[in-house]
Amino acid sequence: MTERTEAPAPDLERFHALFADLGRFGATPKGGLHRLAAGHEDGQARDRLCELLQQSGMAVRIDGIGNIFGLCEWSPGADFLLVGSHLDSQPWGGRFDGAYGVVAALSVAIAHKAAIDHGQPAPPLNLAVVNWTNEEGARFRPSLTGSSVYTGTLSEAEAHALVDDDGTRLDEALGAIGYLGQDTPPTPAGCVEIHNELGRLLENEAAPIGAVTRNWGARKYELVFHGEQAHTGPTLMADRRDALVAASQMIVATRRLADLYPDEQLRTSVGRAVISPNSANVVPARVAMSVELRSPESAILDDLDQRVRALWPEIEADTGCSVELVKQSARQALNFWPSGVAATQAAAEALGYACRELDTVAGHDVVAVMNRVPGVLINVPSYRGIGHNEAEYTDPESLGRGVEVLSRVVWQLLHDDPRQTGNPS
Amino acid sequence: MTERTEAPAPDLERFHALFADLGRFGATPKGGLHRLAAGHEDGQARDRLCELLQQSGMAVRIDGIGNIFGLCEWSPGADFLLVGSHLDSQPWGGRFDGAYGVVAALSVAIAHKAAIDHGQPAPPLNLAVVNWTNEEGARFRPSLTGSSVYTGTLSEAEAHALVDDDGTRLDEALGAIGYLGQDTPPTPAGCVEIHNELGRLLENEAAPIGAVTRNWGARKYELVFHGEQAHTGPTLMADRRDALVAASQMIVATRRLADLYPDEQLRTSVGRAVISPNSANVVPARVAMSVELRSPESAILDDLDQRVRALWPEIEADTGCSVELVKQSARQALNFWPSGVAATQAAAEALGYACRELDTVAGHDVVAVMNRVPGVLINVPSYRGIGHNEAEYTDPESLGRGVEVLSRVVWQLLHDDPRQTGNPS
Repeated sequence: MTERTEAPAPDLERFHALFADLGRFGATPKGGLHRLAAGHEDGQARDRLCELLQQSGMAVRIDGIGNIFGLCEWSPGADFLLVGSHLDSQPWGGRFDGAYGVVAALSVAIAHKAAIDHGQPAPPLNLAVVNWTNEEGARFRPSLTGSSVYTGTLSEAEAHALVDDDGTRLDEALGAIGYLGQDTPPTPAGCVEIHNELGRLLENEAAPIGAVTRNWGARKYELVFHGEQAHTGPTLMADRRDALVAASQMIVATRRLADLYPDEQLRTSVGRAVISPNSANVVPARVAMSVELRSPESAILDDLDQRVRALWPEIEADTGCSVELVKQSARQALNFWPSGVAATQAAAEALGYACRELDTVAGHDVVAVMNRVPGVLINVPSYRGIGHNEAEYTDPESLGRGVEVLSRVVWQLLHDDPRQTGNPS
Repeated sequence: MTERTEAPAPDLERFHALFADLGRFGATPKGGLHRLAAGHEDGQARDRLCELLQQSGMAVRIDGIGNIFGLCEWSPGADFLLVGSHLDSQPWGGRFDGAYGVVAALSVAIAHKAAIDHGQPAPPLNLAVVNWTNEEGARFRPSLTGSSVYTGTLSEAEAHALVDDDGTRLDEALGAIGYLGQDTPPTPAGCVEIHNELGRLLENEAAPIGAVTRNWGARKYELVFHGEQAHTGPTLMADRRDALVAASQMIVATRRLADLYPDEQLRTSVGRAVISPNSANVVPARVAMSVELRSPESAILDDLDQRVRALWPEIEADTGCSVELVKQSARQALNFWPSGVAATQAAAEALGYACRELDTVAGHDVVAVMNRVPGVLINVPSYRGIGHNEAEYTDPESLGRGVEVLSRVVWQLLHDDPRQTGNPS
């Protein structure tokens, strides 16, 4: 326990200016964001972030998977509390998802650094503003790439070898924008992320702050359906092995599986399918597909896993195609660090903001980092729960409230090393 | 009726050399062809064809939709018998489909021209070797673009405005390879095309020559399924409008419709679907799709048209998506010119080759031209009936037999103007 002063108040006007500034790169005419990981616009946004970090007096480090760390090292040699999110977006996605968390972290770091530069006692932990590489998993799969490499659940070599649908490797793409770094990343003491909810619970209950207690589990399957390329005219129906028919059976069946748990304890989806050769007059030869299941209950995911696997031989028998499971990944349902939830609730209470506990169904970088150190996730409301869509929106007041809460939570954790703290004081 | 000599025998060795020569552009490692209409490789193959036509003493004309005509004008002012096919291919398609017909026409023209240059009496009709633009309809839809513009069933302005999936217009693409011509095309007296069967009837019955009597009808639908882009995690299943689920229901249902006519009098397919934004973590917002129905019976196609349209409101009700019919086209089932069938049979008989009558299920340029003048379609066998696939194959002997038959049919039609001939003599 260290001597402490009240958490410095972030400059909200400056926060909004920084948010607008970083939002220029990849902005779409409809008010959304198209800033795919390691693409041109991501490079522009990263350059601007690094410039802002340096202007604010932070040392910038880029690690081997392109994660950006802006370091406030006020206690030389101490470990770092990581605060951040991601600058990449979905295709024609929202401008808050990820970007809000990065700019909020930057604003909080600026405020804390200024306070300490002006004489407040430095806390025992250091602070790092973080931009994690490829959170979205849109251009390159899997998602949470940078944070997973950081904690070691994904090897750097494996991450470098990820390819987009044009065959470009992630390391090439990072190299092309100048973000295949070589710096040693900071050692973590904990991780804090603030994010828009992407659901509608906070809005429905008029709670400006969400203290996230649980992360839903997920199972993801990369499948390839193999058929035989043929002419859509002369080839007899009986002779066809149509990969798109097989893939469509899988998509329809995946949707129907969700009806087994009508209480919304299960989400199923196929968001992506790549069809070859994809010509009107050609029976498709091959369809690659990403299937996703999400639930807070491992038992539901285990049940679904069996049901999904049972579909494949049925589809093979019906269509003559073969189904290949190329890759499978699982994200466990995890509870967030209880003291972090309490810290979020305390900060909200001190500021007079109602705070609600909630789950996160979306994956976040903090979830990957929680494999290694305590993690805290704070949410602010999303208009109508819209996410991964250009219409995603959070009003400026709500954004500001989140930054205020974040500042307090971070300040507290900088003083009470989360690794040693059962409950924050 | 004109004085005539026996049809000149084509130089088959030269034919094989020319076929290999033109097959270089867009050749794939697996022995197929990837030569999309108005793309770079199509431009290379066109350049080489024009060079060969000119070297053979034919005047080259390029019309406003990029059709190439190599003219043998031995009877000044007379109309032209058009003989040819197309150099474009499907993505990773076969190297015989189209290219065979162009090179066969070129070889026959060279033989006929040489005979006339060496003193044989010129027939009353002229001959034009033709390469029709975008037969395949792979990169640009609809198919049979060049031949349809030639006969006026598609306007040149409409054809110019066709766009590929990257938004490139056909006139731009043709301009980029130097084939947006301005020449007036020759006036037709008839049209002859030779093509590999793309089915397995000739092979099954060991008949080296097919005399095509009938073209199957087709109905084609360009559909767009509109949903709402959303996050695949937090968005409640009940709130989703998933365009890919809707599209997949259509694909599965389209396949099932074929089971209503189990005697193979109906072919149904969806060969192409373009999904947006196509990211693993995003509920798809939009799927554009090409649906194709083919049958020799108009009554079947009429029945199917009603059934297809009945699917749309069902899918809309089930998925919350909307279905938009963007474009619809119909190809009527047509009988080929009976005297052309007889001419093919006579030529095969004279050469000692068995000849079988058959339907074509695949569309061909000659079918488009038959709206204006008599058309003849000759087939040679395809190994296992494989088409629109790199494994498409016809053995050299069979190719040679086809060229011999073509030479005789063309020679006869050059003498007996098909427009005035009920039955060839």
